[in-house]
Amino acid sequence: MMVKKAIVLSSGGIDSTTTMAIARSEGFEIYSLSFNYGQRHSYELKKASEVAIFFNAKEHLIIDIDLRKIGGSALTSDIEVPKSEIQNPQSAIPITYVPARNTIFLSLALAWAEVLGVEDIFIGVNAIDYSGYPDCRPEYIKEFEKMANLATKAGVEGRSHMRIHIPLIHLTKGDIIKKGMELGVDYHLTSSCYNPDEDGNPCGLCDSCQLRLKGFNEAGLSDPLVYKYQ
Amino acid sequence: MMVKKAIVLSSGGIDSTTTMAIARSEGFEIYSLSFNYGQRHSYELKKASEVAIFFNAKEHLIIDIDLRKIGGSALTSDIEVPKSEIQNPQSAIPITYVPARNTIFLSLALAWAEVLGVEDIFIGVNAIDYSGYPDCRPEYIKEFEKMANLATKAGVEGRSHMRIHIPLIHLTKGDIIKKGMELGVDYHLTSSCYNPDEDGNPCGLCDSCQLRLKGFNEAGLSDPLVYKYQ
Repeated sequence: MMVKKAIVLSSGGIDSTTTMAIARSEGFEIYSLSFNYGQRHSYELKKASEVAIFFNAKEHLIIDIDLRKIGGSALTSDIEVPKSEIQNPQSAIPITYVPARNTIFLSLALAWAEVLGVEDIFIGVNAIDYSGYPDCRPEYIKEFEKMANLATKAGVEGRSHMRIHIPLIHLTKGDIIKKGMELGVDYHLTSSCYNPDEDGNPCGLCDSCQLRLKGFNEAGLSDPLVYKYQ
Repeated sequence: MMVKKAIVLSSGGIDSTTTMAIARSEGFEIYSLSFNYGQRHSYELKKASEVAIFFNAKEHLIIDIDLRKIGGSALTSDIEVPKSEIQNPQSAIPITYVPARNTIFLSLALAWAEVLGVEDIFIGVNAIDYSGYPDCRPEYIKEFEKMANLATKAGVEGRSHMRIHIPLIHLTKGDIIKKGMELGVDYHLTSSCYNPDEDGNPCGLCDSCQLRLKGFNEAGLSDPLVYKYQ
């Protein structure tokens, strides 16, 4: 039998790690893809490597792309990461939004997919607790998929069936964590903080930590990570 | 009066340089964008800088992104660049095709556009003498534009008007060169060769050189570059 292969975008966080667990549970062999894009929290790449090993990934590719040159986000420039309440997704797009990040990441996944002959790409975007990022909306992902099916050699030949899987799209953070736990994810391997200390310990204060803690709380579980402030 | 700004993707070749001339003639202030992507012919970046100066660009951004890690093309890996006839676009996609390259480049242009507040992106793709690349087709560009209008902050707020301009799409190489000449382009500043020597002299044999020479021939003009073999 042919082994089904999938590329999974991995940041070493809860969403992408749970997404990888789902891809694995659906029988896909994993090709993990991470980005060193000048993020403040590059500790996540170390965690992404551990996650790739945990899921027995066939390959873990880290692509360097310096988004700091483009700027425009607290995650890649000198704008301070806010230590505040989680912003209301309906009201504003947070300054941790990195312009067109998912489009850039999915484009690189598409390129690797074409080289590997893979037609399935998994990304852990989420429309519920999604921090208000435009490129986490299902309508955006659907349009990306349409574009992707015209962008490659297979597209020219009319035999492109690129699928962008978004298994978390309608789950809350609590549901995502429960789903991951059912699938045996070790969340100790993951990192979510935008502003970890030198040892990788999460701050407990940034939007991403707050969302993570809220998720564990909703799931009725405790986060295995130790927080600096909480 | 507000200055109209446009991002122009620039490789320092004939097509992107002519595209920049067209954008300039339409009154746009130029933000030139180039990529250091591990191409064999990185000499083109030097030429792209000269072209940006020639057109009085407000900024020339070069983004590093190592597509060699992804591979799959003679331009970024150890596959030999063919020294052969120009391939028939109807019959096959050449091995100089870089998987999803335009998607990656346009995604990065989109990110920069969002940061700059620019809504116009120019790319010199061409559907006539386009070497058979899937991501040079108008139907692909149209889909990219639709996706781009959902991908950004402005997309969420329903006020996105991102336009991907493809002024060369229906021109032959000869027509492109004639158009550029009318607009005062100095083609001595450009480089097209996939395999230039150490001093940047073009080989005259690769697909890209052949297409360039054919274009000058069609236009009834001579190429100001000196070729190694011709």
